[in-house]
Amino acid sequence: MAVGWKGMPEMHPVAGIRLGTTCAGIRVEGRRDLVIMEVEPGAVCAAVFTRNLFCAAPVLLAREHLALGSPRYLLINTGNANAGTGARGLADARTCCRRVAGLAGVPEEAVLPFSTGVIGEPLPVEKIVEALPAAMGALEPTGWTDAAYGIMTTDTVPKGASRRVTLDGTQVTVTGIAKGAGMIRPDMATMLAFVATDAPVEAALLQRCLEDAVNDSFNRITVDGDTSTNDACVLISTGRAPLSPITSVEDPRYPLLAGAVRSVCEQLAQAIVRDGEGATKFITIEVTGGCDERECLQVAYTIAHSPLVKTAFFASDPNWGRILAAIGRAGIPDLDIGALTVHLGGVSLVRDGGRDPDYREEAAQAVMDRDEIPIRIDLRRGTASARIWTCDLSHDYIRINAEYRT
Amino acid sequence: MAVGWKGMPEMHPVAGIRLGTTCAGIRVEGRRDLVIMEVEPGAVCAAVFTRNLFCAAPVLLAREHLALGSPRYLLINTGNANAGTGARGLADARTCCRRVAGLAGVPEEAVLPFSTGVIGEPLPVEKIVEALPAAMGALEPTGWTDAAYGIMTTDTVPKGASRRVTLDGTQVTVTGIAKGAGMIRPDMATMLAFVATDAPVEAALLQRCLEDAVNDSFNRITVDGDTSTNDACVLISTGRAPLSPITSVEDPRYPLLAGAVRSVCEQLAQAIVRDGEGATKFITIEVTGGCDERECLQVAYTIAHSPLVKTAFFASDPNWGRILAAIGRAGIPDLDIGALTVHLGGVSLVRDGGRDPDYREEAAQAVMDRDEIPIRIDLRRGTASARIWTCDLSHDYIRINAEYRT
Repeated sequence: MAVGWKGMPEMHPVAGIRLGTTCAGIRVEGRRDLVIMEVEPGAVCAAVFTRNLFCAAPVLLAREHLALGSPRYLLINTGNANAGTGARGLADARTCCRRVAGLAGVPEEAVLPFSTGVIGEPLPVEKIVEALPAAMGALEPTGWTDAAYGIMTTDTVPKGASRRVTLDGTQVTVTGIAKGAGMIRPDMATMLAFVATDAPVEAALLQRCLEDAVNDSFNRITVDGDTSTNDACVLISTGRAPLSPITSVEDPRYPLLAGAVRSVCEQLAQAIVRDGEGATKFITIEVTGGCDERECLQVAYTIAHSPLVKTAFFASDPNWGRILAAIGRAGIPDLDIGALTVHLGGVSLVRDGGRDPDYREEAAQAVMDRDEIPIRIDLRRGTASARIWTCDLSHDYIRINAEYRT
Repeated sequence: MAVGWKGMPEMHPVAGIRLGTTCAGIRVEGRRDLVIMEVEPGAVCAAVFTRNLFCAAPVLLAREHLALGSPRYLLINTGNANAGTGARGLADARTCCRRVAGLAGVPEEAVLPFSTGVIGEPLPVEKIVEALPAAMGALEPTGWTDAAYGIMTTDTVPKGASRRVTLDGTQVTVTGIAKGAGMIRPDMATMLAFVATDAPVEAALLQRCLEDAVNDSFNRITVDGDTSTNDACVLISTGRAPLSPITSVEDPRYPLLAGAVRSVCEQLAQAIVRDGEGATKFITIEVTGGCDERECLQVAYTIAHSPLVKTAFFASDPNWGRILAAIGRAGIPDLDIGALTVHLGGVSLVRDGGRDPDYREEAAQAVMDRDEIPIRIDLRRGTASARIWTCDLSHDYIRINAEYRT
């Protein structure tokens, strides 16, 4: 069970969006594994995708279709990533889009494909095509929670977030779902996340709004350091709220809406880490006092990816020497280890290059015994800072990933 | 048990070297945890150390003492790394060296300290000092195997290698021991390794000989990506063989000796990976066709550090999509994924950007079922290459590191 999981929140529908979920039997019979998201005409769509060079066929095709116009349908399958599948994979993704287009009476390029699951195996096109009418028939404005279940793979809980903000006296909604538990170290995007709002936003500004939000949320989490081949995050503005379009960051409504989008993305990103494969701890790593954000992130990710640090957290063992070793190998030039400080929760671990003289193991142990643990490193050489979220490394991570294909 | 472990090899003594091992009760009562290595006067010593900025007190002091002259005694303890211990740690290391010097009648700076074990806890100086006479009393030219046991921590088997080569009709010996199983991703050095030869080599050339050997051996292994605070590798030339000193790489005897040193280092480095914490597989990753060695290593280490790749190996699961995903996120600019090829043993996995049409899972499964598995990636864009060794990630890695301090 995910760390700190409190159940799905209330998912406010977004005017102009309907979702339908069904079981296509792609990998496991009877599991919800196929989702269609319908977008009303006139909506605007922003998206970011993985930077993994071996990006999946659906990522390539979604990029191609997005360049041709705004999408009307998003087709999402789990159980097969359609990645590492070469020319055949691309043809398979095209076939699926064409069949959705045929059922809906829209051009093929108005359908965006998204896949997640095993890499390197051919997409079972027939199973998907056969299940499309059922997914179309299930389309409902209230389909968000079902869809959150429908995009799960090794996730143990569905992930959703929903916010309402008032712009010029009109209430607008931002609602989103995400999936992901392993192969999580998004780079410019995330596993799969779909966010929509009825607030009208001009296309370029919507893209900026998404990129800013993703940069502080999905791009700040890691479970295992493995950037996926299929990461994608989509933000749709249906524009159905009775408001004039937001076209500039100077518009006083923009920061309100951007804040809601960021909040939804942050909650979804944290939900992915809380449900990280085998996770028993939710860890926030904050690095301050850096020369620039890049070096703060470098220190933070070196700690977050250290298997030794992660297993110590799993054991609730305040073996903070491993954090020190990770900082020391992070590759930061001219870092003065005599100046920096390290805190675990409120407990000072390190100063003057060694253990804080006031350190007491009982105090550190009390912090480690919690489910949610903050680490703070002050490099004390500049004003930049960064914050990321990660989880521990447990027996269940090994079990899940050793048994993944069985 | 280490992968492919065949027992300790015959350890040929090196004229001019004696080793003594005892139990100081540093962490576990009755465990051999203290080793003294005695070096005859006139020997030459080369050494490399960790680049981790949080390097341990003994590393700082060993560097300081080496700058003052050639060592007569090496003092090695396990159970406590004396790292992250600040000024007190340095004073503690000095005390231990001074006490060895007093017993042996040599200057303090003729003693080099080496520590490995828990980071961030004060060194139990009294226990070490009390055990010194026993270690001194145990000094024997045949003490190599005992010493290999004496430097073990989470190692399950001792690690030794020994070679003899004939230079100008005279047989010379190269013998070495190493320890290490976790926190293994040496950077310019290794965990702890001690190698000695009776061949006479001039000091600067000996250092070069060591650095070249280390670069192709200890610097080409990784267990968990965690570079230690205490890595050190020492090569001693006692010069006791009746030969004129080797002073130049042009000397025809140099490549013969350097080959033996490299062979000993490679065998020790591989022994560390074979005994990697929880290891069940020994994996060789070779990357060819790169523009330079750096990018070949970048691809190789990205694969070697991927928890998903490592757990797939643990499960003997040919889930090679994870290898592809790792290559794709390795950060190689302009890499053409349509050109590169990936082989698992003799089985072609990938060409033309996707699964090889002739791929059969049974063939890949047969390779994965072995204990020793080669992966070969041809980037097909240059002539550079690199090879590294790593192991899988198993339940036992988690268990060992979660329980490490209990």
